[in-house]
Amino acid sequence: MFSDFLESHRAMIDAEIARVIPKDSPIRNLYDAQWRFIEEGGKRWRPVLCILVHEALGGSAERVLPFAAGMELVHNFSLIHDDIEDGDRSRRGKPTLWVLYGVPSAINIGDNLLNKAYECVANLEEKGFSAAMTLRSLRLLCRAMILLSEGQAMEMEFRDRWDVTEAEYMEMVWRKTGILVSTAAAGGAYLAGADESTVQRMAEYGKLIGPAFQITDDVLNLVGEYGKYKKEIWGDIREGKKTLMVIHLLGQLSRGERARVKSILAKPRRLTTRRDCRYVVDLMKEHGSIDYARRVAEEMLSEARSKLLCLPKSAHRDRLEELTDFLVRRDF
Amino acid sequence: MFSDFLESHRAMIDAEIARVIPKDSPIRNLYDAQWRFIEEGGKRWRPVLCILVHEALGGSAERVLPFAAGMELVHNFSLIHDDIEDGDRSRRGKPTLWVLYGVPSAINIGDNLLNKAYECVANLEEKGFSAAMTLRSLRLLCRAMILLSEGQAMEMEFRDRWDVTEAEYMEMVWRKTGILVSTAAAGGAYLAGADESTVQRMAEYGKLIGPAFQITDDVLNLVGEYGKYKKEIWGDIREGKKTLMVIHLLGQLSRGERARVKSILAKPRRLTTRRDCRYVVDLMKEHGSIDYARRVAEEMLSEARSKLLCLPKSAHRDRLEELTDFLVRRDF
Repeated sequence: MFSDFLESHRAMIDAEIARVIPKDSPIRNLYDAQWRFIEEGGKRWRPVLCILVHEALGGSAERVLPFAAGMELVHNFSLIHDDIEDGDRSRRGKPTLWVLYGVPSAINIGDNLLNKAYECVANLEEKGFSAAMTLRSLRLLCRAMILLSEGQAMEMEFRDRWDVTEAEYMEMVWRKTGILVSTAAAGGAYLAGADESTVQRMAEYGKLIGPAFQITDDVLNLVGEYGKYKKEIWGDIREGKKTLMVIHLLGQLSRGERARVKSILAKPRRLTTRRDCRYVVDLMKEHGSIDYARRVAEEMLSEARSKLLCLPKSAHRDRLEELTDFLVRRDF
Repeated sequence: MFSDFLESHRAMIDAEIARVIPKDSPIRNLYDAQWRFIEEGGKRWRPVLCILVHEALGGSAERVLPFAAGMELVHNFSLIHDDIEDGDRSRRGKPTLWVLYGVPSAINIGDNLLNKAYECVANLEEKGFSAAMTLRSLRLLCRAMILLSEGQAMEMEFRDRWDVTEAEYMEMVWRKTGILVSTAAAGGAYLAGADESTVQRMAEYGKLIGPAFQITDDVLNLVGEYGKYKKEIWGDIREGKKTLMVIHLLGQLSRGERARVKSILAKPRRLTTRRDCRYVVDLMKEHGSIDYARRVAEEMLSEARSKLLCLPKSAHRDRLEELTDFLVRRDF
């Protein structure tokens, strides 16, 4: 099982995190809260991706750990702030941090965690990387975080619009879901001393796999099996999220249908009925929107797989292929 | 006038900021919002402090600008998030960012700005500083931001407590108000190639001047002249803020008085009457709490001034002395 492989890396990654986040700080409403959040969830697949790329190019897991662990920290940071921004009350079946600690404290806990990620990556220097390589790694992180918040801003702006194009969606989604994966993979390659074109190829891999992962997730939100899919089925419709399927569908409908779909998506969450949701999903099936999204994700995935071929053949590369499948099949 | 001197640096600092924050980005709900906030306010005294220290030690303003401007960016970041966390609806006489753009967007705008500060400081490399010096500057920023959020967490935790000691208050306040000033001054010295003891002395200067500034502000909140003092008089009492005066006062009162003061501070903001506020302020005057706080601030200020003496005598050092007085007299 690939999840066992991920699990086998957890202790190493969490030990690196513990170097920057104290386990017995007197400031308990900050660091205890972070540990609680970090320990409760997350498969650690972003750091493992970074480690595997690094190893596939001749590096050692031990040395790249500060960068790999930093990826997990920024991922957690973004979840904490996203949950506040989206008003989500539960994650991984448990109350979100802002529900437990209040919005003001949760904002501050996230802010601290983001800076801890920078501190974590800066520790590359202590693994013997030069100041120049450590600095460039920090710049990679910084660039990723800027793009991530741009993606978030774009998604927020989409909420008030009905004319979002597929191209705009793609500009948003690679920032929002691709850039962290891209940075994890590219950083792993860069720190192994790979040439620029390999680093670039790994960045492209992440830029493809992240959105493929997101689009698959959005499809599951519509047609996933209850129980297997951990989040709220049809939650995206209730939220009025502009997914690729919604954008595709809006381009296919008659005037009357479009008006009804828009009114359903614009409704406040609590007023959206199961009948509303079923209406939208049925239209999507009828107009091939779900199949279209699946096809787009499938194409991105196969292009992503081809990027992995620039790595020398090895057990690590095989593992990366498994990781790719794991992410998109995602029974987790 | 010292504020004219500050004003004369604004264009240079804002031009440096413009290198990292685009003025014509299509992502308007992000970058236009940041510019609006940054341009509307702030005296830019933190960057000017950094520049003056740097010049006093033989450096040039031009070279240190990325670090100096970075200080202004993180200051603005912290205001944006603080306003959400404290629920403040106005700043500098205008609606706060979260009032204008909503909490979700304001959180994201702040997050982006924090990362832009890192990007700004990383630009030191382009001014000819070595990777090692640029990296250490980023670490200074990172350390500052971690301490700042620790200070914020401590202040939040104080809200539910009545047994906060003066020592705990001091641990909080230098993190919350000293560390940025400390980092601006220490960074200016470090980047001028100063020896460790000078860098240290500049860090201590900021660690003293920041809290002295805050305590003076808290005193003004109680006894400031309406009109001259820009914020809401007695706002701290309505908020139940654990200022140095409150901590001092609680240690002096009889059981009955303490119970009444606690009940006033614990009241929701809108229920606190002018009579309540006057009662607390009168007790503070009677028990010497305000004089005590003034004395503490005065002592920190004079110790801070003495730290400046490690700099070679120059027009820049004179300006730093003026800045010190300006900050604590603060008619702005």
